[in-house]
Amino acid sequence: MKIKTNGERLWDSLMEMAKIGPGERGGSRRLALTDADIAGRNLFREWAADAGCTFRLDTMGNLFARREGKNPGAPPVVSGSHLDTQPSGGRFDGILGVLGALEVIRSLNDQGVETDSPVEIVVWTNEEGARFPPAMMGSGVFAGIFDQSEIYTHQDPEGLTVEGELRRTEQLGDTPCETFPIKAYYELHIEQGPVLEAENTSIGVVTGGQGSTWTHVTLQGQGSHAGTTPMNFRKDPMMGAARIITELREIVLKQPGAVGTVGRLETTPASINSIPGQVFFTVDTRHPNEETLAQINLDLKNLVNSVCTEEGLENEFDLIWEAPTLNFHKECISKVRNAAESLAYSHLDIVSGAGHDACQVNRVAPTGMIFIPCENGLSHDEAENTTPEQVAAGADVLLHVVLASACN
Amino acid sequence: MKIKTNGERLWDSLMEMAKIGPGERGGSRRLALTDADIAGRNLFREWAADAGCTFRLDTMGNLFARREGKNPGAPPVVSGSHLDTQPSGGRFDGILGVLGALEVIRSLNDQGVETDSPVEIVVWTNEEGARFPPAMMGSGVFAGIFDQSEIYTHQDPEGLTVEGELRRTEQLGDTPCETFPIKAYYELHIEQGPVLEAENTSIGVVTGGQGSTWTHVTLQGQGSHAGTTPMNFRKDPMMGAARIITELREIVLKQPGAVGTVGRLETTPASINSIPGQVFFTVDTRHPNEETLAQINLDLKNLVNSVCTEEGLENEFDLIWEAPTLNFHKECISKVRNAAESLAYSHLDIVSGAGHDACQVNRVAPTGMIFIPCENGLSHDEAENTTPEQVAAGADVLLHVVLASACN
Repeated sequence: MKIKTNGERLWDSLMEMAKIGPGERGGSRRLALTDADIAGRNLFREWAADAGCTFRLDTMGNLFARREGKNPGAPPVVSGSHLDTQPSGGRFDGILGVLGALEVIRSLNDQGVETDSPVEIVVWTNEEGARFPPAMMGSGVFAGIFDQSEIYTHQDPEGLTVEGELRRTEQLGDTPCETFPIKAYYELHIEQGPVLEAENTSIGVVTGGQGSTWTHVTLQGQGSHAGTTPMNFRKDPMMGAARIITELREIVLKQPGAVGTVGRLETTPASINSIPGQVFFTVDTRHPNEETLAQINLDLKNLVNSVCTEEGLENEFDLIWEAPTLNFHKECISKVRNAAESLAYSHLDIVSGAGHDACQVNRVAPTGMIFIPCENGLSHDEAENTTPEQVAAGADVLLHVVLASACN
Repeated sequence: MKIKTNGERLWDSLMEMAKIGPGERGGSRRLALTDADIAGRNLFREWAADAGCTFRLDTMGNLFARREGKNPGAPPVVSGSHLDTQPSGGRFDGILGVLGALEVIRSLNDQGVETDSPVEIVVWTNEEGARFPPAMMGSGVFAGIFDQSEIYTHQDPEGLTVEGELRRTEQLGDTPCETFPIKAYYELHIEQGPVLEAENTSIGVVTGGQGSTWTHVTLQGQGSHAGTTPMNFRKDPMMGAARIITELREIVLKQPGAVGTVGRLETTPASINSIPGQVFFTVDTRHPNEETLAQINLDLKNLVNSVCTEEGLENEFDLIWEAPTLNFHKECISKVRNAAESLAYSHLDIVSGAGHDACQVNRVAPTGMIFIPCENGLSHDEAENTTPEQVAAGADVLLHVVLASACN
């Protein structure tokens, strides 16, 4: 019989942690490096110490809790996520990854399992980026993507710096924040989307992350009086924008797995009886394959140009940000799939639509992720929810991939 | 030979008036009942007194300058418009109607013409509504559309009332603001649209005003993460809005003479990487025929409902304002057309897309309007422009309709 985690204990720990920095509607508010965030970390430290762990704190405040293995010199298997939340955050986003890894160690202790490699839990600093930009900060410095001395100067809206807050909260450790040999890194997370729930599936085997691009589109027409300007005299950027947005969806739907979103649109002037002279809107496009994503954005650019020609408009088309696609480590993906299979949990391969600390760590260590369903796909909201059964299934899979990587 | 006005004198007066409350880019800023507005009125009073006029000021500050006729007891022929401007207003909108009427009296004086009926110039108070809502205030009270005691309480953004400002500026006269017998009312105005210029035509024979309706449309969907929500799981109100706006234009184009405008659109939340939960937009529709306008709005409502059903959205559809269609007086329209014809000015029948004091006066007196072209159809902007030849043509037509109505 396969050993399992204690799902009830994990759920209780999640609920206990959610009380730290409580939200107004059942969620949590633990912005990175605030007193609430530190209180959450301290609760975790207490639990991990009770589980026999030792600690290392690095110069970005990333916290490692270690359970020794038979070969203390061997690279550890690392698993974790983050304890900081969005301003009106949920009880699971990040927290499940940390407390799931804690539950793995507690279960190893319960069963008296000694692994060959050490097992470490990591709490990454400031994954959300909601207080200090950018998101995935601690794991990004660790993976060499961000420069620590530059990141130290970043400020929150009140002008407090990352370095200042690391010092004030005594999270600026003495271990340099830099990559060390890691046998494998696994992160358990809620899906933050609706697919697993809709497919009635317990486990998402995350194969990689979508590439994404953000574009600013500005259409320039001729503002004028809504009453006195006949339709055939108009250069109306709102009509151009409506055509482009309608057609954008057709472009996206032609590519399975693609998504496209217009999140902001502004008219200038914004007056009920004026034809706007200018319309600005944003486009977020994502796809797991880089070439397909490039094709979507090329199609969009051509669409904008052709609609503008037909409507007598000028346009600016500015790519303001892009994140490359990423593929997790083949062996890690296989281990996650095999664990779900052997535990008889329903599973399907899935691509992450959001960024995670695992996406950063993937640059420097063999990495895999495990998703579990969340209610209505809702996340970054206090109503974020899942079930004790679902978190237990996720933790069981995590336990078995950690065992598979740490015992040989 | 037909007598004519002195176009050069009229142009000089327009340019002189534009210096009062100068704008920043060549236009004017004379918000109703400000010191600049009063300075403009005083300049007009000076000129009208020099032309031999006597004055009446009513309790709404509407100013009447009278040139006596052979029959002093006969109802006067009245012509005018307004001297107040938009915050960044042009040199012609309203001012042309007042100074054009002054030029008519100056020309009658030059030619020694004695009319049967008296001729009066009127300066209506607060046509723009830019400082105190609503627009067309003075003419609206005069025509019995607004209640004076209620209008007196209206405040500007600083809390100053209409009554207080009428008193402070000594524009609260002793003649009751109410309808009196008027033989005919004519108003000369720039078109504020592009049609006459595009048709290379000197005179617009205004047959009436469009009906217009303002609608607020709110689409409610499901806000969620732009990365983790597959296209087929979305209830995206931005996509619904884009479809509706694109189709709205098709509905409008099916009805010749109709116009439809989406001037404002707002997404909530307005975030580049969030599918909005809600989209709000405004719709302004206009048509000269009331039944056609009703049909357009019914088609729009049906469109909103059918798109929402297909997209899984809820909607609110609120008609927030409507102005009925109006027809000017048949004989006044004919007189304008005949005058243009006999003076050999090119002309075409046109419907006013905007509201004017004449639209209010039309309720209580035989009314007609004369349009002249303006550059690029631009108005409510300091760049508003026309030419000395065009204002002269408009004033000539005004002179001849005043003569046609005042001499018999």
